[in-house]
Amino acid sequence: MSKKCFGVDVGGTTVKLALVSENGHIEDMWEIPTRTESDGSQIIPDICDALKAKMQEKGLGMQDILGIGMGVPGPVLEDSTVDGCINLGWGRKQAGRELSEGMGGLPVAVGNDANVAALGEQWQGGGKGHASMVMVTLGTGVGGGIILDGEILGGKTGGAGEIGHINCVAEEDLDEANCNCGNHGCLEQIASATGTVRFARKVLRESDMPSILRDKEDFTAKDVYDAAKAGDTAAAHVIRRVTGYLGQALAGIAAVVDPEIIVVGGGVSKAGEFLIRQTAEKFRACAFNQQKHIPIVLASLGNEAGVIGASRMIMNQCGEDTAP
Amino acid sequence: MSKKCFGVDVGGTTVKLALVSENGHIEDMWEIPTRTESDGSQIIPDICDALKAKMQEKGLGMQDILGIGMGVPGPVLEDSTVDGCINLGWGRKQAGRELSEGMGGLPVAVGNDANVAALGEQWQGGGKGHASMVMVTLGTGVGGGIILDGEILGGKTGGAGEIGHINCVAEEDLDEANCNCGNHGCLEQIASATGTVRFARKVLRESDMPSILRDKEDFTAKDVYDAAKAGDTAAAHVIRRVTGYLGQALAGIAAVVDPEIIVVGGGVSKAGEFLIRQTAEKFRACAFNQQKHIPIVLASLGNEAGVIGASRMIMNQCGEDTAP
Repeated sequence: MSKKCFGVDVGGTTVKLALVSENGHIEDMWEIPTRTESDGSQIIPDICDALKAKMQEKGLGMQDILGIGMGVPGPVLEDSTVDGCINLGWGRKQAGRELSEGMGGLPVAVGNDANVAALGEQWQGGGKGHASMVMVTLGTGVGGGIILDGEILGGKTGGAGEIGHINCVAEEDLDEANCNCGNHGCLEQIASATGTVRFARKVLRESDMPSILRDKEDFTAKDVYDAAKAGDTAAAHVIRRVTGYLGQALAGIAAVVDPEIIVVGGGVSKAGEFLIRQTAEKFRACAFNQQKHIPIVLASLGNEAGVIGASRMIMNQCGEDTAP
Repeated sequence: MSKKCFGVDVGGTTVKLALVSENGHIEDMWEIPTRTESDGSQIIPDICDALKAKMQEKGLGMQDILGIGMGVPGPVLEDSTVDGCINLGWGRKQAGRELSEGMGGLPVAVGNDANVAALGEQWQGGGKGHASMVMVTLGTGVGGGIILDGEILGGKTGGAGEIGHINCVAEEDLDEANCNCGNHGCLEQIASATGTVRFARKVLRESDMPSILRDKEDFTAKDVYDAAKAGDTAAAHVIRRVTGYLGQALAGIAAVVDPEIIVVGGGVSKAGEFLIRQTAEKFRACAFNQQKHIPIVLASLGNEAGVIGASRMIMNQCGEDTAP
């Protein structure tokens, strides 16, 4: 058995594609633009064209491909129906069936992109060697994924692992603006890159704590973390509070699913061990008994997590018994 | 296939035992005292004696019994090792193996009592007809259980579903006392029966809100709920806040596991629809998108949930394909 898989990670501007061996090695990885015009009707045909061209280029036949895994930026129901992807122009769509039909009937598995990336990290990244894992992704928004027994927990409506929308932020730490989801108090509103900047502005506005951030016309979440690392008073206060919410939320998740490991990824996680250490401190204060010792580590696959996780997802579906 | 199961629910003062048919009907249910002396070494022999006597009474042979499910008041590891039950005097113990050996090698499944009761409610109670469910039990403490695809989510260390120890209560709503687990801020500290009474005392002490509770020397959580239902100002404030924390915590859990239904049980749940309505109000304000519509219902099995869930657990383990 040395079949290969295709991993596909559909984003709002580009689609990442990869040919992945059954041990998780990326043999080839490339991108195509995401054509969102006409309700995104060209996206799947474009993917089919790209995959077929790659098979021809590599001299691969249908019998060499186990199947195709695909992550999409929206909820995926238990029966693999995509339940709308605003960024792609998709409403409810049988995306898996369409892709399979376009690829001569190859098996296809579809999952939410954050969940699929979590599966990639569990298989080959920060969570490698652990059957159950919670992943939180700190980027423009805050996403996540729950892996149990090496499988994605998708949930009834495709909404499991929506860690960013745990409602946990105190009124006093928020502006009047709502979260993108329409609620007020979501973790995303303070722990995302944009949320951290917004909170830092609020702290600067409402306090007289000294800060080098006051000299900048504009600043990013990275600037706030860098300033905090350098001992900046206001920035350190901001990051202590942001990582406090994050650590407390992760402790709550741990009380519910009791995972083996917690992995932190996304652009903000480039703040590295500083972020992990502060998050873990609050986590250990809030976590239940034996869960206090759950390791919290950085993600390690970067942009490859999606295609690697997508490959693992189709292997799981096809019952491939590869090394965990 | 009309084999029967034994369901066993081990508590700190009594052990409940039941003979359960494969469709979930309790054919007989009785209790024996829990002998916790000598590190609880007599508990399993006592259970074996009771089950054997029942088999003789009913004229049942080994071939008539599919197996035994047992819920215990402590964490149970993935390999069925009981990881300490303080109330029973047990340390780490191979309770399942001991019970099986005492019962002539019958299959045995062991789970945490709160998780097992949740499985009972999912199979035959408030969650009937739903494959995934979150249960929260409001009693002296706050417990819970997560059921996914008709199976208990136990977690790596047996600590999944520890909803009562989600850290979410604001400092201002707590006394200095810590939770039984040693942390400060656990949901249990405000939503348990004892927590609700403690919080009510604090509100009465620190405010001048009128309340009939002020005339009582001593009161219970039921008194607080009853007063709130009757429009008592302070009690209504207390219950709004308690159910607010509960609803918010349940919304966070829903964002993580995206269940089909949420079931509320335990002694405090006798407050009924009043409790559910107030909890659901906050839940729907805090929950993510489509999860806002997850039904929140009352548990319906009462004290039978444990033995029914224990029976289902052994059926699951033995691969019995009974109606969900």
